[in-house]
Amino acid sequence: MCSAMAAVFRSPVVSPSASASVSASTSQSHSNRFLLLRFPHSSKPSHSRLQSFFTPHTHNPTNLTISCSQSQTSSPPPLLRRPPYIPNHIPDPSYVRIFDTTLRDGEQSPGASMTSKEKLDIARQLAKLGVDIIEAGFPAASKDDFEAVKMIAKEVGNAVDDDGYVPVICGLSRCNENDIRTAWEAVKYAKRPRIHTFIATSPIHMEFKLRKSKEQIVEIARSMVKFARSLGCDDVEFSPEDAGRSEREFLYEILGEVIKAGATTLNIPDTVGITLPSEFGELIADIKANTPGIENVIISTHCQNDLGLSSANTIQGALAGARQLEVTINGIGERAGNASLEEVVMGLKCGSKFSNGLYTGINTRHIYLTSRMVEEYSGLQLQPHKALVGANAFAHESGIHQDGMLKHKETYEIISPEVIGIERSNEAGIVLGKLSGRHALRKRLEELGYELNDDQVQTLFWRFKAVAEQKKRVTDADLRALVSDEVFQAEPVWKLGDLQVTCGTLGLSTATVKLYGVDGGTHVACSVGTGPVDSAYKAIDLIVKEPVTLLEYSMNAVTEGIDAIATTRVVIRGDKNHTSTHALTGETFHRTFSGTGAGMDVVVSSVKAYVAALNKMLGFKDAST
Amino acid sequence: MCSAMAAVFRSPVVSPSASASVSASTSQSHSNRFLLLRFPHSSKPSHSRLQSFFTPHTHNPTNLTISCSQSQTSSPPPLLRRPPYIPNHIPDPSYVRIFDTTLRDGEQSPGASMTSKEKLDIARQLAKLGVDIIEAGFPAASKDDFEAVKMIAKEVGNAVDDDGYVPVICGLSRCNENDIRTAWEAVKYAKRPRIHTFIATSPIHMEFKLRKSKEQIVEIARSMVKFARSLGCDDVEFSPEDAGRSEREFLYEILGEVIKAGATTLNIPDTVGITLPSEFGELIADIKANTPGIENVIISTHCQNDLGLSSANTIQGALAGARQLEVTINGIGERAGNASLEEVVMGLKCGSKFSNGLYTGINTRHIYLTSRMVEEYSGLQLQPHKALVGANAFAHESGIHQDGMLKHKETYEIISPEVIGIERSNEAGIVLGKLSGRHALRKRLEELGYELNDDQVQTLFWRFKAVAEQKKRVTDADLRALVSDEVFQAEPVWKLGDLQVTCGTLGLSTATVKLYGVDGGTHVACSVGTGPVDSAYKAIDLIVKEPVTLLEYSMNAVTEGIDAIATTRVVIRGDKNHTSTHALTGETFHRTFSGTGAGMDVVVSSVKAYVAALNKMLGFKDAST
Repeated sequence: MCSAMAAVFRSPVVSPSASASVSASTSQSHSNRFLLLRFPHSSKPSHSRLQSFFTPHTHNPTNLTISCSQSQTSSPPPLLRRPPYIPNHIPDPSYVRIFDTTLRDGEQSPGASMTSKEKLDIARQLAKLGVDIIEAGFPAASKDDFEAVKMIAKEVGNAVDDDGYVPVICGLSRCNENDIRTAWEAVKYAKRPRIHTFIATSPIHMEFKLRKSKEQIVEIARSMVKFARSLGCDDVEFSPEDAGRSEREFLYEILGEVIKAGATTLNIPDTVGITLPSEFGELIADIKANTPGIENVIISTHCQNDLGLSSANTIQGALAGARQLEVTINGIGERAGNASLEEVVMGLKCGSKFSNGLYTGINTRHIYLTSRMVEEYSGLQLQPHKALVGANAFAHESGIHQDGMLKHKETYEIISPEVIGIERSNEAGIVLGKLSGRHALRKRLEELGYELNDDQVQTLFWRFKAVAEQKKRVTDADLRALVSDEVFQAEPVWKLGDLQVTCGTLGLSTATVKLYGVDGGTHVACSVGTGPVDSAYKAIDLIVKEPVTLLEYSMNAVTEGIDAIATTRVVIRGDKNHTSTHALTGETFHRTFSGTGAGMDVVVSSVKAYVAALNKMLGFKDAST
Repeated sequence: MCSAMAAVFRSPVVSPSASASVSASTSQSHSNRFLLLRFPHSSKPSHSRLQSFFTPHTHNPTNLTISCSQSQTSSPPPLLRRPPYIPNHIPDPSYVRIFDTTLRDGEQSPGASMTSKEKLDIARQLAKLGVDIIEAGFPAASKDDFEAVKMIAKEVGNAVDDDGYVPVICGLSRCNENDIRTAWEAVKYAKRPRIHTFIATSPIHMEFKLRKSKEQIVEIARSMVKFARSLGCDDVEFSPEDAGRSEREFLYEILGEVIKAGATTLNIPDTVGITLPSEFGELIADIKANTPGIENVIISTHCQNDLGLSSANTIQGALAGARQLEVTINGIGERAGNASLEEVVMGLKCGSKFSNGLYTGINTRHIYLTSRMVEEYSGLQLQPHKALVGANAFAHESGIHQDGMLKHKETYEIISPEVIGIERSNEAGIVLGKLSGRHALRKRLEELGYELNDDQVQTLFWRFKAVAEQKKRVTDADLRALVSDEVFQAEPVWKLGDLQVTCGTLGLSTATVKLYGVDGGTHVACSVGTGPVDSAYKAIDLIVKEPVTLLEYSMNAVTEGIDAIATTRVVIRGDKNHTSTHALTGETFHRTFSGTGAGMDVVVSSVKAYVAALNKMLGFKDAST
């Protein structure tokens, strides 16, 4: 597999300390995905290095990946190719692999459960973004998880592009034969399959969770890595869980043993997110210096965010020698989440002087759309001040025109928003209105990154016309809400027919709901409640007869103005089964399901969201493997 | 002022490199605010240092500030006192001052405008938290800002507690006599007033924003620091704005000059948030090594979060010699915000081995309530995976009982949530129901940190009973929503009487609204609209006749269950005036105003929020000074 790829790629010969620019073929300069940058760095501090950030790159699409830290005096930065993929070796010592675990670690956040279709959409988007490895899930968690990983391996894992790039598809497994076999059965369809297996190595985990001795742990790790290789998988990642709290000498020992057993990547997780950057950097440096055979494998980082330091820790890990960084889009994940892809990639990119010329293969232009898609599917809404992708991150995006800020944006804006794919739609973007036709709608949707078929565009067009009748300007945000509401939904079991509500401070709230069942039958029910949403949900419960608990309910208007489209999101938990196995604790837990709905009537959008969540739950396959 | 304080405080004599614990008086061990910790650190790595995080401290309130990084083998960490306050000197070289700028930098976020009363509430809470300096605002921005700073200086700036602690009250000013005089007029009422003045020193800012030469900038800075001192202010902070992009030699020069002119704190802002931790640390170290007279002043950090690295940069700044850290609660601020207080304080606390025994005076038990208050008043909602204070940051807070996680929480939880003031109400907390009386309600509110007068408790009691009639369990979150809705509101101009709404998919949404005016008059109007909220807002507009633009609209159910209380938040901008001066750009901009409303009917809560935002806007005083 790798030798076949080697013909397609050409690796520039670089010395890691070279400060001169490195030339590479630019003959395919219109294929953005492979236009990588080397950041110029010199041994002397250049205090003016930031002054040329503001050159507008908007009108030349091939320039969009240009670094934010380009030096004013140097020639344009050279374009580099992604080095060929060899599991345990990267030909260019300055290249850093990005391992995205949004679909595994991110998806295990409370309420973030996604359907297989949603996962596939995200995996496709991650491939556009150019991540090197997609951790697609934990196949042993449930039948649903297994099927999703398999589907991603088959589709995204085989979509080799013109430049020979295709992401590695990785499946997580605990250190036992059943998990590893299940992971392999899911990922083996990919061109570049990887098994990622882990076992805890900290005293507290070994004693209280695993109840095993050090010798037993080493033996399990070694034999399970061997087992994974024996299945035919030549790309095996091993993680000593809770490495941040493990004894150094024991880490060197177990890592040395799994290298001998055939591991190709060693991932060092700060599982509980307790380290400071300097501390985590020291851990990586120590492992690099003391583990026998480490020069034959890739060192990886995986930093949790419990102290808010995960992106800094990850960058420090790269500076100390790690060449694979595990991240998630928007930094989602359990508890306080993980290092976020956008912060780590842009941090390395902007901090050239201090990042020793390290570079990634990420096409940063796709960051914003990927972030939006993950926010929508996971239901984990970003705070307005989230770095890079939050609503306020770029002043002009806040919807508030502070003239002063706009005039002086070069003085306060270090990254041109176009670099991460945010278009200044207020300046030049197309805004659709009620006279816009199907062609204009399709064109705008394509520009926003949506690939829809004719039927989908047709359905959206009618929704779009209905909105345009009532609203002068239909913005990008409106379109995104409509796409999400119409296209990105689970297979319907129940479908909303009509709804009628009376409420207020004066009387009893009453709702009447009409639903269509999957059998085509029509069902009508009415209920009173404490408010319009409560009464409508109770009426739905009378029809669907599936006991659930509503865990979260939230709503946002997607655009300015009182006549905006509102998007509602709910998270429910079925009071019956819908269980899954937790990757780290190994215990069974109840899945939760989110649903979104959009509409100009807040009660209608609330009802749509509830029906969507019910449909998602009813379509989920329980733990079985 | 300082000599008077010195009698109250006692400073422990410490060598900065001492690894032995330092003893201090524990005779007042029930006064938590002054029980500070020294974190034990040794020259050899202790990999088991995290294993004793999990000792439950819940039932001993005096233990609540215990470090998360207490070593298993050492004796209990000694309790330290906050050193006496001297503007340009800290007697204990390991003590780090926390400078909170939530009310200045945080409040300038889009939509985060607060009323004077809200600012005063937050300032009081910051004093409980034990911050050393409160930057209360930018007095020259508007009359409203001036009055708020003055009120905080008078009230919070004079509330000296039994241990002699009172926060410094600081006002921001540009480098001109009018701003500085205005700031002084506002802060001079405090026991410890401070003026903070700034001017940009980077080539891009000097050339494009200020249009001044280096010599002119130095002269302005020197003369304005002298001017501030000449007013009688002996505590003057100076910031070279955009220091991260300034020339080193010029920084050393201008900083040396302002020290000679009488500056007592030098703040080094990474205004555009471009630096990596190692880079920012080097900047602080360089300034410390090269600025003449630097040993006589305090070095401070101010890190913006544009790359998501601000907390790490701030910690690195402290390690490099800064002894004042500028932060905001929840990390709010313009664009991607600032370093967040909770991350910086807990990072220093948990990273003992690498933080060289640095410690702060923060009483971490008050972090959570402060975070909630700022979230509510600023309207900047946190993402669920926000470190430490997000809804998912501690697994048990997510509302989802994953048995496995709970059983093994010691294996994945590094900080006991009680340390930052999160009570595990599901385990032992009081849950109120419809039989609970006024006394139980008051007691619970006090436990939640609210200090309310009898009238307020009485009003809340009736709201509480109404909720309890319809909901079995009234939780802490419900109570917080009610307090926010009833107590923390702007002075009413308009008040909601009644509301009646009909909506759904079948017909035209119609709303009828009755409002009471400040004159006591009753006004009724009805309107149709695209949904229930739209029609109700249009009916209100017919009565209030104040043209506004709705910028944001969002709603959250505060608790599980379909019968939850929903809190709505809106942000509006008046189409008339309501202007303010921007601190950095110096230009006039339109303020925006947020309002919240709570209720079990989503339409009612939406209407309350809109009326609240209108009231806030109508009470705002325009720029005038």
